[in-house]
Amino acid sequence: MNPPRGMRDILPADKARRERVLSVIRDRYRAHGFDEIETPALEEYSRLHAGIGGDNEKLAYNVLRRGLDAEAIRAAAEDQGALADLGLRYDLTVPLARFYASNRGQLPGVFRSIQIGPVWRAERPQKGRYRQFVQCDIDIIGDDSSRAEAELMVASLDAVDALGLEGASVRINDRRVLEWMLDTFGFSAEERPGVLITIDKLDKIGPGGVAAELRERGADAAAVDAFEAFLTRPQSGERTAFAEEQIRTALPEGAPDELVGHLVGIGQAVAVGRASADVPLVFDPFLVRGMGYYTGTIFELAHPSVSYSLGGGGRYDGMIGRFLGQQVPAVGFSLGFERLVDLVTTGADAGERAVVLIHDADVPVGELVAHKAALVASGARVRLERRTKNVKALLERSAADGYTEFATVAAGTAGLELKPLS
Amino acid sequence: MNPPRGMRDILPADKARRERVLSVIRDRYRAHGFDEIETPALEEYSRLHAGIGGDNEKLAYNVLRRGLDAEAIRAAAEDQGALADLGLRYDLTVPLARFYASNRGQLPGVFRSIQIGPVWRAERPQKGRYRQFVQCDIDIIGDDSSRAEAELMVASLDAVDALGLEGASVRINDRRVLEWMLDTFGFSAEERPGVLITIDKLDKIGPGGVAAELRERGADAAAVDAFEAFLTRPQSGERTAFAEEQIRTALPEGAPDELVGHLVGIGQAVAVGRASADVPLVFDPFLVRGMGYYTGTIFELAHPSVSYSLGGGGRYDGMIGRFLGQQVPAVGFSLGFERLVDLVTTGADAGERAVVLIHDADVPVGELVAHKAALVASGARVRLERRTKNVKALLERSAADGYTEFATVAAGTAGLELKPLS
Repeated sequence: MNPPRGMRDILPADKARRERVLSVIRDRYRAHGFDEIETPALEEYSRLHAGIGGDNEKLAYNVLRRGLDAEAIRAAAEDQGALADLGLRYDLTVPLARFYASNRGQLPGVFRSIQIGPVWRAERPQKGRYRQFVQCDIDIIGDDSSRAEAELMVASLDAVDALGLEGASVRINDRRVLEWMLDTFGFSAEERPGVLITIDKLDKIGPGGVAAELRERGADAAAVDAFEAFLTRPQSGERTAFAEEQIRTALPEGAPDELVGHLVGIGQAVAVGRASADVPLVFDPFLVRGMGYYTGTIFELAHPSVSYSLGGGGRYDGMIGRFLGQQVPAVGFSLGFERLVDLVTTGADAGERAVVLIHDADVPVGELVAHKAALVASGARVRLERRTKNVKALLERSAADGYTEFATVAAGTAGLELKPLS
Repeated sequence: MNPPRGMRDILPADKARRERVLSVIRDRYRAHGFDEIETPALEEYSRLHAGIGGDNEKLAYNVLRRGLDAEAIRAAAEDQGALADLGLRYDLTVPLARFYASNRGQLPGVFRSIQIGPVWRAERPQKGRYRQFVQCDIDIIGDDSSRAEAELMVASLDAVDALGLEGASVRINDRRVLEWMLDTFGFSAEERPGVLITIDKLDKIGPGGVAAELRERGADAAAVDAFEAFLTRPQSGERTAFAEEQIRTALPEGAPDELVGHLVGIGQAVAVGRASADVPLVFDPFLVRGMGYYTGTIFELAHPSVSYSLGGGGRYDGMIGRFLGQQVPAVGFSLGFERLVDLVTTGADAGERAVVLIHDADVPVGELVAHKAALVASGARVRLERRTKNVKALLERSAADGYTEFATVAAGTAGLELKPLS
């Protein structure tokens, strides 16, 4: 009698925390000029399987076409696409691109969107990974300047701060930097996708592991040598500020001015937007990020309390064009909502009064409802609980659910004596 | 390039209104001691097709089973259930019953739930009806007393009041009253379901139409005569208060004390809960409500400004047992969220400052971001807009999106001159 495999029910305490986190994020993103939209959970099968969604396309849940008769089913045996005409979205980016193409005429010239909602992926079930989970994206469509990246980062850092997770930083790189670097080492354009998949593992397997895997892949030997020498070169351990010098030091010599300048510009704009000289940006020339649709800047949100990222994104200037037939620049940032919810420790809304009334079974309906109504009218949240043998357990559960006070009610009780729940 | 047929995109102004309405409803329901939960959008195919969901079962979107090969598809040709193992929920009641069965040990003895979320029905597309829409339910599980009905009604009326729709009332009846009444007229138990379907049309086709349709159906002739005579009896046009006398007057003679007393008790409790002598309840002995799972009280929310209902619900004491194997009383109230959103006219959040900065294309990124940051820090919501030829159109759209002030920014602008947007 459980939810479907890989999916979950969300109980009251968790749900309340999720809604509190969402409400903080919404508030901060709205303050920074982003507007929330909503797209349907279902999209056309053909759009979900157009090669834009990368590996996630294979994980889409497909929805059985209506009105199929036995003959049509038999005929469709070799082609699941003929059985399904709709599918559940596996991310919010493909639907956003479709939304923008559908509604462009009604949107501002530079459109800053918030999209928050569930997505579905038929992944192999594993601990902490669910087949339905919430994504929380902001995107800026129609601005090709570094201001867009800066706005996304400033807004997201503000949201994370507001959740009580101060101290977050953004690891940043650019797809074009990766490409230039691989060219410089001598990898061919054809090798690039495979090489990037291996580089993506650098944090896990280290420079030696990366070099070994590249050799195993049969990558150009001289290029692998050059790359390994660069990865293992002596480096100053000193962490310097996010500025041109730091970026150049982290790259092979001769990095193009335009790419370095773009990154420096984002850092300067973030500093201004944060009104702080301490720019929370870290240049990571080996940050790859998996999605094939990224064309420029890519970034991930890091926090000192955890080793995994709390979100990320990048520029995907090619995707809107796939839907609209006209190139429009776009850049997005996806907060790792499910991970944030686990980290945030906010309790009940500060200052909220929440009262449990523990009543005997024989208290007349009218009396109980009157007690409750008076407390609700005074601004409190009120739950009625019939007295059980184990009142202690009842009080403990109420406290866990965020209730702050209780009173006992017998038939004929006039004034209630409220006591703190702790 | 549109959303799938029968589904819709929700644009910023609509989305903001929807979130404001949800936030008011959540706040009021929480105050009345209800706790929000969430269930997955997908449930097992077999649970969605167990005969509990009534006509909606036929409208379920079914999800293609993973890993079907051509042979399995050919073999499944006669049985769509073999092609699908999951489906999208068509209501929130079946998932709630499943949720309660799954999680009972972690829930309060009397569980008051809020569930808000999308449901999907493959209905024939028609104006104003969508294949994905939001339901907004509260339910009380584990309380068989009339206090549960009163709590649902008081909380829902409070929510509707808080949305600025004062003056709502609840039409109420009881399935057992309907059954007793049909017995009294002389309809057999076998005729009952068909007779109820016809009675449900009384508002539309009137007493004559109902009698004609019953005769056409071949219902017992003497019973139809008795029923028609009752429907067309002379009645005082005076609307009396919701009390025993009003209820008895609306029914054939000899209505069982227990049923009348139950209704009167709900009215008294609602009066206490509303702290008002004006009980917003109207007894309607011909209110049927379609869902086959109702076992007792049934009700609908009415508002003088519209002819359709704004929600409704009833008692369904049998359903939880279908999942749990043990009878547990339950009663629910579903607010018609999509209809409420259309009625509510709240504008932007009162007192919210929202500023549009209209800037020339050549303003340096850092200057723009600094202007924005200063305004956000002061508590305003801020959108950047590049100046276009038609500034008037730009200002109008900003005002429609809820912005309240604007300023123009050129390169080197120091202080901003904010002007009201109207």
